[in-house]
Parts: sequence; structure tokens; C-alpha cells
Amino acid sequence: MLDRLCLAVDCVVFSVSATDLQVMLIKRGIPPFAGEWALPGGFVRRDESLEATARRELYEETGITKIYLEQLYTFGDVDRDPRERVVTVAYYALINLKDQSIRPSTDASQAQWFPVQNLPKLVFDHERIFATAMQRLRAKVRYEPIGFELLPPKFTLPELQKLYELILGCPLDKRNFRKKILAMDLLIDLGEKETGVKRRAGKLYQFDQDKYQQLKQKGFNFEI
Amino acid sequence: MLDRLCLAVDCVVFSVSATDLQVMLIKRGIPPFAGEWALPGGFVRRDESLEATARRELYEETGITKIYLEQLYTFGDVDRDPRERVVTVAYYALINLKDQSIRPSTDASQAQWFPVQNLPKLVFDHERIFATAMQRLRAKVRYEPIGFELLPPKFTLPELQKLYELILGCPLDKRNFRKKILAMDLLIDLGEKETGVKRRAGKLYQFDQDKYQQLKQKGFNFEI
Repeated sequence: MLDRLCLAVDCVVFSVSATDLQVMLIKRGIPPFAGEWALPGGFVRRDESLEATARRELYEETGITKIYLEQLYTFGDVDRDPRERVVTVAYYALINLKDQSIRPSTDASQAQWFPVQNLPKLVFDHERIFATAMQRLRAKVRYEPIGFELLPPKFTLPELQKLYELILGCPLDKRNFRKKILAMDLLIDLGEKETGVKRRAGKLYQFDQDKYQQLKQKGFNFEI
Repeated sequence: MLDRLCLAVDCVVFSVSATDLQVMLIKRGIPPFAGEWALPGGFVRRDESLEATARRELYEETGITKIYLEQLYTFGDVDRDPRERVVTVAYYALINLKDQSIRPSTDASQAQWFPVQNLPKLVFDHERIFATAMQRLRAKVRYEPIGFELLPPKFTLPELQKLYELILGCPLDKRNFRKKILAMDLLIDLGEKETGVKRRAGKLYQFDQDKYQQLKQKGFNFEI
């Protein structure tokens, strides 16, 4: 009497390079759309929570384990999959690439990073899912300190500003940015400088997650 | 080979009375948990989008048709339903009660409004779904003008302030509130006064949705 449906999870995984905000795509190894680009994902098993599916698929397709993961939106148009009715719960993920590299495996023949402003055509409704994730990330970095998930634990202020510029897609005023971020007093000055750079070495900072959590409990709002 | 699951939609429907922010609950007419209170909802049919399910269930269980509806979050814990694996896509809805009344029907034996601070015990994981909706509503009314969906088209400033106080759960400074809301220049002064009140009649306003949409396109942020 009840209809039973296939449920999938798809992930929009973001990282940053020196010059780009990038997203991970998978060249599909199996039909439908074999050889075309898609977001990494797969089907939810009967005995598996949604987030467990997301973590399993990311691990199987890319080898990634340590990742910031958050549910984005559930896409359920009746005809979004040519095979049969498939509803997909989309997640977005942020990863600091300096800690991990990606390797393709199992049902994905190839995993690759693409700059967000230069993506190939995506299968299913994955372009819509990607656009929704972009919008959420842009909105959320302004009022939650999630951007730090994309950086290594130690970073300079110019690196942090560059990250925000890549996500927001526009340049930010340097003085204003420094003033705002330092006024929140959430960066720990490590008393160290970056090494191995030709230009003048910048001071290294660390985000104070414990202090942020305490302040948040008391009603503090992060804002950039 | 693929597991197929039951997919449901549950709705957290908010309205306001003179004294309370309230949520609509259904006394379940069928097992499991017959006679206990639940959020209105039901199963997604194979040929039906998620939002169509939400609108159909709300209509069947309450007779409500005109409603602001937004997807909230998808809850997929493996053991959240004693019958079998059921994943539920939760929506939250805002309704202006002056336009519509509710009537119970079909598989719900009774539909009733409860003040949010005084809910009965809810079945399944519906308390968690309700808490998630409360959190979303409280956060969102501050940066999107969705609160107006809970008011009749013409309202006074004290009514608007009361609405915000009910949602946020705390009193607001009257001068500050008026200043903030009027400074955005999004309320149309209708040149009318409320009628049928014993106290001094207040000026009636209307929210300028068209102007808000135009401003939003240009990067304007609503903020209370």
C-alpha cells in the first residue's frame, strides 16, 4: 500500500587552492551517464543513517575521512532521475586540503577538483544542488565561522581574507576586514611567522573554537 | 539490490493568537501511537514531489490551503519509526489565522493549536523536529521578513512588535524596535486606523513585499 522509494545522498565538497574555491566532482564509472561529471554520492542503505551514507560514500569515492559535513537540502522532483524515483538528501562539506589528498575508487572512475567558476556540465539536477550549496556557503560564512574548516590550523590574515574573497566572489577592503575579524577577538596570535615565503613573512593565527563556543552560548554573533 | 525506503513529510505549522505563538498538532487516529499527539504529515507517493505531499497532507488533515511553506531538515535516524525505516522530510509553515480556520479530517481524528511553551508529549522524533523548527524560525525572522506571514495584511506596530516578542521569547525595547523597522522603509502607512478597540486606535501598516524583493536583488539585508 505504501510506496517505497530509493533515497540517495549527494555531497558538495568544497576546498580552496591558492587561487580558487573548488568543488570535487566524480567522473561516473557506471550508467546512467557513464563518463559524465557528477557530485559524489550514493544510495542510502536500510540500516544506515543519512550522515553515515554521506561519510561512507565520500570515503569510498575519494578516501576522505576528516571533513566538516552539514545537511543542505532534500531534492525530490518526481523526474530527477531517469531510472526511477530517487529522492536525494544533499550535504555540503568543507575540507582543508593540506591535511588530506583524494584518491578515486570503487564506482567512481575519477575524482577531481574544479574551480567553482569553471565547472563542466553536471548530470541529474546536480547543477541545482551545487548552486544551492554555493548560496548556503556564501550566506553562512558571514555569520558562522565555518570558513576556518577550509584553512590549515595555522594561517595568516591575508590567507583568511583571500579565503573570504574566494567564497564571496568579490574583493574585500583589507583594513576593514582586519578590523572586523580582530575585534571579535577569536584569533589566537601564535607568536610565529610563516616560513618558506619570498615576501615578508606574515604572523600566524589560530581560530579559538573553544572561546567561540562559549561566546555563542551567551548570545554572541559572529559576523564578517 | 537497492534498498527502498518509506519517505514521509512532517509539518511544523506556526500561527499566532493574541497571547501565544502556537503550533498545530494532530491527535493520531490510527496506530502506531493512536490517541497521541503528532505533527501533521504523511507518506510521499511515488508520483508526488515533497512539497506536494506537504500541501496535500496539510489540506487533508486541516483544510488549510494558503500557507507559507519551507523545507526545514530531513530526519533519517535508522530507528525513528517502530514500524520500519521511515525517513522524513520536515517542513515548517506559517499561517495567518484570520484568513483561515482549521478542521480535522481523514486519518487525523483531531487537529488543535497549542502554545509553543506548553506542548504535550509528541510521538516519534517529533519533539526534535519541533525544536529544530523553533530554532530556525527564531533565527530567520531576524534576517528575512517572514514574520509578516503570521499577521493579517493590515497590522499595527504594537501587533508587529508583539509577534516578534512571541517568536523570540523575550520583550523588545519599543523605541528601538520602531526605529529599526521604520528605518528600513518597508512598511506602507495605509492612512487608516484599527477599529473596534477600546484603547487608542493604532495606525495600520502593510508590508511592502514588492519593494523588499527589489531591494533584496540589490543586496539589501532585512534585519531586526
